[in-house]
Amino acid sequence: MLRCTRCGKAYPETFRLRCDCGETLLVEREGYDFFGSLLPYLDIRRYLNFLPIGGNYLPPAIPAITPTTSVQAGPVFALFKLEYLQPSGSFKDRGTFVTVAKLMEEDINEVVLDSSGNAALSLALYSLPAGIKAHLFVSYDTMPEKLSLLQSLGAVIHFVEGDRMAVHEKAEEFAEREGLTYVSHWLNPYFLEGTKTAAFEVYEQVGVPDYVLVPTGSGTLFLGLWKGFKELEKMGEIARLPVFVAVQAAGYESLCERSKLPNPLADGIAIPQPPRLKEMERVLDETGGLCVSVDEHETREALSWLKRAGFLVEPTSAVVLAAMWKLIERGEISDGSRVLLPLTGSGLKLIEGI
Amino acid sequence: MLRCTRCGKAYPETFRLRCDCGETLLVEREGYDFFGSLLPYLDIRRYLNFLPIGGNYLPPAIPAITPTTSVQAGPVFALFKLEYLQPSGSFKDRGTFVTVAKLMEEDINEVVLDSSGNAALSLALYSLPAGIKAHLFVSYDTMPEKLSLLQSLGAVIHFVEGDRMAVHEKAEEFAEREGLTYVSHWLNPYFLEGTKTAAFEVYEQVGVPDYVLVPTGSGTLFLGLWKGFKELEKMGEIARLPVFVAVQAAGYESLCERSKLPNPLADGIAIPQPPRLKEMERVLDETGGLCVSVDEHETREALSWLKRAGFLVEPTSAVVLAAMWKLIERGEISDGSRVLLPLTGSGLKLIEGI
Ligand SMILES: [Zn+2]
Ligand SMILES: [Zn+2]
Repeated sequence: MLRCTRCGKAYPETFRLRCDCGETLLVEREGYDFFGSLLPYLDIRRYLNFLPIGGNYLPPAIPAITPTTSVQAGPVFALFKLEYLQPSGSFKDRGTFVTVAKLMEEDINEVVLDSSGNAALSLALYSLPAGIKAHLFVSYDTMPEKLSLLQSLGAVIHFVEGDRMAVHEKAEEFAEREGLTYVSHWLNPYFLEGTKTAAFEVYEQVGVPDYVLVPTGSGTLFLGLWKGFKELEKMGEIARLPVFVAVQAAGYESLCERSKLPNPLADGIAIPQPPRLKEMERVLDETGGLCVSVDEHETREALSWLKRAGFLVEPTSAVVLAAMWKLIERGEISDGSRVLLPLTGSGLKLIEGI
Repeated sequence: MLRCTRCGKAYPETFRLRCDCGETLLVEREGYDFFGSLLPYLDIRRYLNFLPIGGNYLPPAIPAITPTTSVQAGPVFALFKLEYLQPSGSFKDRGTFVTVAKLMEEDINEVVLDSSGNAALSLALYSLPAGIKAHLFVSYDTMPEKLSLLQSLGAVIHFVEGDRMAVHEKAEEFAEREGLTYVSHWLNPYFLEGTKTAAFEVYEQVGVPDYVLVPTGSGTLFLGLWKGFKELEKMGEIARLPVFVAVQAAGYESLCERSKLPNPLADGIAIPQPPRLKEMERVLDETGGLCVSVDEHETREALSWLKRAGFLVEPTSAVVLAAMWKLIERGEISDGSRVLLPLTGSGLKLIEGI
């Protein structure tokens, strides 16, 4: 079922973004069977038993199980998870895969999303073979190459005047007016069901890390990873959650104190008012976590380190490494800790600028 | 040990490209333990027991286990293997990973390669964190963006006048003159050890396909996949090999009859005189296989189909789908067959042109 994160009201597992009270929803599994009921796949289908989809309608481009590789980094072990090795080049494919499978099951064939970044490319790529028409709301400053790729994937582009929050509002209005399904990954509970599978993989690959550092804008990966570890706890597999650290872009913080000088490199997490903010605050409370803000210079330095270590990622991905360095310097991560650093987006599409 | 593919002479497992007789070498495993001795990793390290490396020195960017997804395509089942979901954007990372691990074990820290394509990017990306200096021989028509990426990864670029075979010869001469290790993936037996792991994955994921269609220039994936299935046969895991189909680019055929009109889209396999040609001919003989040549128009059509199915790949990857369509039309693949189509390279780096 779906359950409201504020009032606790329950809903059947159909495609729905909000409670009647206006607050966000999470999928709640009825029984927590044991983690041994993995399926014998070596891709995301391995975790189908833990997902709110039947498995009869799946998009063809199946997300991968991404490698997790341990690198000694000063006094700690950095566990890089190569989340950028997905069909559209970002971790978003996990959430999109579950979402599109759900839409197919419900026979929904026209949807609305606001994004011109990784979420948009992911949705366009998965919608087209599923026969779903995708309306994408974007701002006027979206790069022409991005738009032409999205259009070549069959997406309908709608331009909006204004900032990121204005684009979000226009998209929701349009969906309501036209009677179409709004699939905002900021709100969509099925998206988090996809991203939670990254936690299952980490657990199978390296057990429970001490810290989990996540690039955090709308919180789709932050909350997904938390939900995955939380379900492992409910299944009796693990005894404690890792400490969750939200890593944000300077100037766009929602959990950390707002910086004056914005970080223009981390556009993937430049979301100043995410709807699931309270849920993220609760995760920081529950796990004894904290928020770290990263500026442009720190991002650039971390990006360069990652490239030299063999990881071709986009700038937004680099903030977690910069944040780890900061926490080490401040003495907030103890020596010998195992620190999960998901690398969220590919640098390949940016090959000229990287 | 290493064994000559012509005279059968054996050599110890050091880094070596050719037999004294001039012919190519393959790694031969002393005992074929059973396939159950997989390691509990969910990445290429799962197969470390079957690789000629110790595992103590491994590059940080670990290649992934790529998804294999079954799509009904007319009368057959296309099994797409998403080999482009690797750290440098192509299947080459499998071969590079094993090669660089071997070089690290032998304390070799300066190497020579001729390539400006996927193999070069892969080598540069894995060499840098391993402390290996890579000399890359390229032709003058290499795109400037490619060169700047390679240089930013620490590679030393050497320009050569002439065609692809001239670049190959200059690189080998330079390595010999300077006393450096030439790591040509066309010749390097350790490279095939890496690419053979793709066959192990396919076997775990979908069993033995009826047909395996491979983009074939120098044959690094063709021979690697064959060697992987062959080892599974020697381990007593499988009773028969799949039928191997070499798919080549029109105008650059080495196994098919040479076409007059070249296919400019499939530059990844535009290698008219591959050194391992006889080995490839033997695989076609052994498995009852054949060669199929694909032209520009067919490549373009297949590429567009793949994009609409959710697979953002580079043009060279598309030739296998075009070849499958051809074989179905000619009645050379029977209805209900399961046809493996490895998709070898990412389309993301080409985002503007795709
Ligand atoms: Zn409510
Ligand atoms: Zn010989």
